[in-house]
Amino acid sequence: MSSCLSHCRHHHQVRLHRRAGPDRPLPAAASFAPPLRRRAGRAHVMSAEAPPGVAPAEPGPGTATQAAVLSEMVEDAAVWCAVHGLVVGDRDNTRSGTVPGVGLVHAPVSLLPARFPTSFWKQALELAPLFNELVDRVSLDGEFLQETKQVDDFTARLLEIHEKMMAIDKKEDIRLGLHRSDYMLDSETNSLLQIELNTVSTSFPGLGSLVSELHRNLLIQYGKVLGLDSERIPRNWAASQFADALARAWSEYNNDRKTLAQVEAEGKINPDGTLVVDGRIVSVVYFRAGYSPNDYPSEAEWKARLLMEESSAIKCPSISYHLVGTKKIQQELAKPNVLERFLDNKEDIAKLRKSFAGLWSLDNEEIVKSAIEKPDLFVLKPQREGGGNNIYGHDLRDTLVKLQKEQGESLAAYILMQRIFPKASLTPLVRGGVCFEDLTISELGIYGGYLRNKDKVIVNNPSGYLMRTKVSSSNEGGVATGFAVLDSVYLTDE
Amino acid sequence: MSSCLSHCRHHHQVRLHRRAGPDRPLPAAASFAPPLRRRAGRAHVMSAEAPPGVAPAEPGPGTATQAAVLSEMVEDAAVWCAVHGLVVGDRDNTRSGTVPGVGLVHAPVSLLPARFPTSFWKQALELAPLFNELVDRVSLDGEFLQETKQVDDFTARLLEIHEKMMAIDKKEDIRLGLHRSDYMLDSETNSLLQIELNTVSTSFPGLGSLVSELHRNLLIQYGKVLGLDSERIPRNWAASQFADALARAWSEYNNDRKTLAQVEAEGKINPDGTLVVDGRIVSVVYFRAGYSPNDYPSEAEWKARLLMEESSAIKCPSISYHLVGTKKIQQELAKPNVLERFLDNKEDIAKLRKSFAGLWSLDNEEIVKSAIEKPDLFVLKPQREGGGNNIYGHDLRDTLVKLQKEQGESLAAYILMQRIFPKASLTPLVRGGVCFEDLTISELGIYGGYLRNKDKVIVNNPSGYLMRTKVSSSNEGGVATGFAVLDSVYLTDE
Repeated sequence: MSSCLSHCRHHHQVRLHRRAGPDRPLPAAASFAPPLRRRAGRAHVMSAEAPPGVAPAEPGPGTATQAAVLSEMVEDAAVWCAVHGLVVGDRDNTRSGTVPGVGLVHAPVSLLPARFPTSFWKQALELAPLFNELVDRVSLDGEFLQETKQVDDFTARLLEIHEKMMAIDKKEDIRLGLHRSDYMLDSETNSLLQIELNTVSTSFPGLGSLVSELHRNLLIQYGKVLGLDSERIPRNWAASQFADALARAWSEYNNDRKTLAQVEAEGKINPDGTLVVDGRIVSVVYFRAGYSPNDYPSEAEWKARLLMEESSAIKCPSISYHLVGTKKIQQELAKPNVLERFLDNKEDIAKLRKSFAGLWSLDNEEIVKSAIEKPDLFVLKPQREGGGNNIYGHDLRDTLVKLQKEQGESLAAYILMQRIFPKASLTPLVRGGVCFEDLTISELGIYGGYLRNKDKVIVNNPSGYLMRTKVSSSNEGGVATGFAVLDSVYLTDE
Repeated sequence: MSSCLSHCRHHHQVRLHRRAGPDRPLPAAASFAPPLRRRAGRAHVMSAEAPPGVAPAEPGPGTATQAAVLSEMVEDAAVWCAVHGLVVGDRDNTRSGTVPGVGLVHAPVSLLPARFPTSFWKQALELAPLFNELVDRVSLDGEFLQETKQVDDFTARLLEIHEKMMAIDKKEDIRLGLHRSDYMLDSETNSLLQIELNTVSTSFPGLGSLVSELHRNLLIQYGKVLGLDSERIPRNWAASQFADALARAWSEYNNDRKTLAQVEAEGKINPDGTLVVDGRIVSVVYFRAGYSPNDYPSEAEWKARLLMEESSAIKCPSISYHLVGTKKIQQELAKPNVLERFLDNKEDIAKLRKSFAGLWSLDNEEIVKSAIEKPDLFVLKPQREGGGNNIYGHDLRDTLVKLQKEQGESLAAYILMQRIFPKASLTPLVRGGVCFEDLTISELGIYGGYLRNKDKVIVNNPSGYLMRTKVSSSNEGGVATGFAVLDSVYLTDE
């Protein structure tokens, strides 16, 4: 859902470890290092304070060589981006974003892929079809989606459309989902924890695929001197896998549509349910927009959304799939016995639940007690969407004690969440053609393509990945994340 | 040799014809035209005056539809460029060209491919291996290359290196050429005439390949409504064909090199002739620079050039190949009986000669007489490289009459050339994300890859193409060409 690189819902505490770097000492400078024939990447001082007890790694043998190699890699990386379409709009250019094809700059990227243990990688891949299936099952339970009324105005409008579809008993035989489930590795529990599940306009399958290719190419060229193996970067076909799922959806729709519909007036729905735009029948509606209140400046947009939903066109996502991806539903699904309402296989349920970060309401006295004892392991969040600041540490303890005394409705205004402790690494980042090193944390998104037609599941696969790496700086409350870069995965045996 | 899009050696007179446009009336707006859902391309007025007697084409049926389609195509084209690496540095961005990967903008392109008759296309392809072979033969004739001493200072330095190689009887067993022969269609003689032959750092095989793909994709999408067939754009693998030739050269070199050379000190040549840089033996030297005096700011660069030439590394190009591409040699080859010095096959010689624009010295009294009678068919050029202005029309006649009276050395200071009359078309051009229509002329470059090892010819193929289209405005003297765009070929049956 989020198209902003720096968006991250959960808060987290930084633990330092070393980024993908040489497993063995670098060779002496003389034999491998190319001369500094190109502009050296500007080396910034670290902008983030290391957490207490953590010191930056001492320079080892071959550091000078590595610096020369990294400097050469920066130029290669930036040029590779330019000639392979790994570019974004440059915010400093006023025409960028208003005129197509102008004001381009290479996408911000990490220079090296992020280390990621193979075991967690496999776990994340295994979860993709389970989450796909879960989204589908939940989407069919209209009552469940409608139950949780206590939401923001925007979600309330979505629920309104959903309610109208329930009223006319609208069925979606062909259901297409292009999802992305985002995870972080929690160093405290040594587990893979879900951050969020995106079911609408899941971003960056294209750029994500390209970053993996960029890193693969850099390691083919420089892997030897860096002690890194390009084969440890998993292949990433996110863009083509999503395109394939879209194409198959189109085929399913047109195979099912027996006769050519009579073309009605523009923007009307035919008696057979088909939607006609520009004299053509719409088979698949892909929502590149529509997930933010800004996308609905007037009632006309809501009317259009309703029209699409009423039609027989395949919606990616349908209003139901869209709602399943809301924060509210994520919270509901994390409650005890809720997964069991949708899935039968106990192993699948256990795998999904294992990836949920803890999420408790304050009527759970045992958890409240734990949180007062160990406030650093929790985050206290206001229940209302988008409202208020999260509460940590001493403040969390004090607030809980106060709320316990008050009891009553004020307890319902908050929710307790498990605090995630991602490890931080020192990472060379490239932005605007310039490289600098900073402390970062990474978030892995696994794309999942899903297509079914009634009982026939046609696509249900993990479909590539997206690694996003964010500059992190610890602060009193937790971690403030700065700008983010696109990244890929380097599988390790840890 | 030229890496500047707008470079064109010959001068020419514009004749108008229509660019690749619909062969049949466009369908009515209702059935095909998508709504103007995107920003309309800003339509400039024509900036060039049409030549006398030529009026812009009258708008036909469906012009409004076509305008809407073109406007949509402009955005698609610019976005396609951005995501496929068809980008260049933006001169308006101060960091562009100094920092890699920043300040990018889509390459200037024509929106539609340029019409080109299939017969001339085949002729140009057929010439590629013949010119490759000619370059190779001429390169072996050191005396011939040295004969023409009357050259500029820069070429004199190249000849100096060549002379040193002759003195040590340097042999290049493996010879690699990545050439491009540029042509224009002369409407006066209805013939394909060579503009120049590039033998060093031939530019744009990468971008050229991409433009063909861009146009192919646009015609797959919009060809039906425009009455154009994407299959009429020839496939263009210039970049990979050149890469393949380079890779094969590398293999040849290393197959021939029986034993691993003893590595000497940096920048020295080993007893076996191998050149060592950064502790590695250099197999192939590709000159991305070195064809302009600016590339030799000091004696160090000339020393390096000499060192490379002395080594056994394959040079692309060798000093001999480089010299064959000079204007001086082009002139020599156009003289009577010179091709016969290098080639045996009379048919091949006839084919090559047919592509030469006429080039005569002023001791040819018959031609001087013709030129005085029909001055518009000739250009009088100062003999010295890069010196003085070309003379046309009345001035040409007057100058010739004056020179005839003077006789003597002043005759040798000039050369008469056949004037080329390319047809001009009204072409939609896209630059900076904005489309406008202007009068243009086009120049077709055919890449030619050549690799041989002693008597074994390993590669000798046409290797893709580059169409460059230039804004033309007629002026008194001939044609002043303005900025240029990358283009591709649309084969016609004319």
